[in-house]
Amino acid sequence: MRELPLINREQQVLDRIERARRRRPTVREERITLAHGAGGKATHTLIDAVFLEEFRNPLLEPLEDGARFAVDGARLAFTTDSYVVSPLFFPGGDIGDLAVNGTVNDLAVCGARPLYLSAGFILEEGFPVADLRRIAASMARAAAAAGVAIVTGDTKVVGRGKGDGCYITTAGVGVVEREGAFSAAAARPDDVVLVSGPVGEHGVTVMLARGELDISSDVTSDTAALHGLVAALLDATDGVRCLRDATRGGVATVLNEIAAASGTAVIVREEAIPVRRDVRGACELLGIDPLYVACEGRLVAVVDGAEADVALAAMRAHPLGAGAAVIGRVAEDPPGLVLLKTAFGGTRIVDMLVGDPLPRIC
Amino acid sequence: MRELPLINREQQVLDRIERARRRRPTVREERITLAHGAGGKATHTLIDAVFLEEFRNPLLEPLEDGARFAVDGARLAFTTDSYVVSPLFFPGGDIGDLAVNGTVNDLAVCGARPLYLSAGFILEEGFPVADLRRIAASMARAAAAAGVAIVTGDTKVVGRGKGDGCYITTAGVGVVEREGAFSAAAARPDDVVLVSGPVGEHGVTVMLARGELDISSDVTSDTAALHGLVAALLDATDGVRCLRDATRGGVATVLNEIAAASGTAVIVREEAIPVRRDVRGACELLGIDPLYVACEGRLVAVVDGAEADVALAAMRAHPLGAGAAVIGRVAEDPPGLVLLKTAFGGTRIVDMLVGDPLPRIC
Repeated sequence: MRELPLINREQQVLDRIERARRRRPTVREERITLAHGAGGKATHTLIDAVFLEEFRNPLLEPLEDGARFAVDGARLAFTTDSYVVSPLFFPGGDIGDLAVNGTVNDLAVCGARPLYLSAGFILEEGFPVADLRRIAASMARAAAAAGVAIVTGDTKVVGRGKGDGCYITTAGVGVVEREGAFSAAAARPDDVVLVSGPVGEHGVTVMLARGELDISSDVTSDTAALHGLVAALLDATDGVRCLRDATRGGVATVLNEIAAASGTAVIVREEAIPVRRDVRGACELLGIDPLYVACEGRLVAVVDGAEADVALAAMRAHPLGAGAAVIGRVAEDPPGLVLLKTAFGGTRIVDMLVGDPLPRIC
Repeated sequence: MRELPLINREQQVLDRIERARRRRPTVREERITLAHGAGGKATHTLIDAVFLEEFRNPLLEPLEDGARFAVDGARLAFTTDSYVVSPLFFPGGDIGDLAVNGTVNDLAVCGARPLYLSAGFILEEGFPVADLRRIAASMARAAAAAGVAIVTGDTKVVGRGKGDGCYITTAGVGVVEREGAFSAAAARPDDVVLVSGPVGEHGVTVMLARGELDISSDVTSDTAALHGLVAALLDATDGVRCLRDATRGGVATVLNEIAAASGTAVIVREEAIPVRRDVRGACELLGIDPLYVACEGRLVAVVDGAEADVALAAMRAHPLGAGAAVIGRVAEDPPGLVLLKTAFGGTRIVDMLVGDPLPRIC
């Protein structure tokens, strides 16, 4: 994050955005790097330049967390995520509940009630069957807790050194029972931005679980299914514009997606962002900003400003939203940018994640 | 395949099946082997003992190629497959069209019209972006040809030596517009078994493409989307009991699934099974039976015997079914077994695939 005096820079910023819009996206790298999987800038460029370019269709184009469409009058949401987290087991969860909760959450933030999941396993030769059973049991518990059923699946095995124990890809189908676009493009000036609890716990937990750093902490992953919290929020107010779960790239990346898609500015107050003390401490030692660290059970909601109190109260009344906070607001200028008001009165641009400080976090 | 005189062995066979039914499935191996991913016996045991045991629900339980359920009155099919084929590019196709066609086919054999696909990519650090673009272009062409849209996706990157270039997991949603169970359990005595064309071409192509064997051949993968062929067959007759695409484990494994699920015998005539001469030659050199080799564009259909001619004519009238043949029939005894009548007048039990002669074929 760079300190920038904003006065007289607005035209430059607008020019930069306009140039980016006109440019056909290209991947400058010849080979895939870890950054292409980090959820930040490189991931977005890769998706735009390769997948969107080739697959282009109106359902994919919004690049939301899931696609929504109607089949025979039923309004459905459909989403997928691959999970490559290392280590597979970590305090508070494992790749199994992560894979279930992640897909449940992607459906929930589309405004859908999650119903059915698929699970594709890519196992490495030599992987302990007992570990697979433990992962499957964890998936089953997470599915039962979220009220979804794992109804179809696939298992492939690759030779030693061609995988890393176990990768899981889940896809999910949900039913859209709510009216509302729930789209990053729907954010408008004077909306408020809420987060459902402290940020960065999942990412820091996984990082510390690798044991490469001499930091001990009792922080645990926040992995959780957010559909109940989303339902509570949507029951309380019609003012919800956009819902996201802040995973790879953290809250900062989600806010950038919202600013870019809606052509608004998102202005957050640093001291309003809830961060556990031990997460902040670990982040300082790691030299990373908690705003960029993955959560796996935190909702980011953009809500009509007039509904801010109602929305906050609804979140806080839910067990998974007890630590909810209004962290900022949406403004007109500078369009497409996320600004952070620091505790010291300064303003910084919060860019989308560049590089990958914490690879294979989910 | 073992030669067995069948007279006086029936009781033994029935006892064996009954014992297997009463036994709670267990994985005897402590670690995952390549055979667990081969689609044969070890895969079935792993799925029964771990995934079915943990995820158990009425939609998963039939273990068909996809799950069928209704949402808001819409009848849907939902399926997933992971693709780990090596090499990624081979004569006649690549991992991209394989991943699209495979999921389209799993929907088609559920009696569903394929609509929407998801795609999850697990890329290895260092993978050439140009290869990814080529794969995405191939997926786009296959999707367009099959009339489906790739509407949602995900990209993860793993470090060098933790993958093998590119793995893809597709999931698919289709709409069930036909009446009929289309289930392996629906096969009945006096049904006939059809296959839509020569078997084993995909598996042999991939094996030869590895270049480890000094065999040259112009055989190419049969990868194709089968939904049009399925629709032509279902338009022609109401007598279709069960549809399968013969992928991992080949036609032999599909026939064993049908015999086991329906409690019938499937009796096939060796000389009726279409096999290209060069595929047969390569299989002889490799010491494998073409009946166990994967196809990626071959339909196996079990059809009411009275509709055999109509079904065969309908298949043959479709470009993808020009080489269709009736390869056998369903009988009462011995229940749960697949028998092969050899060209020399003998009878052999065709077991489910054991081990993995051709790993990472799809």
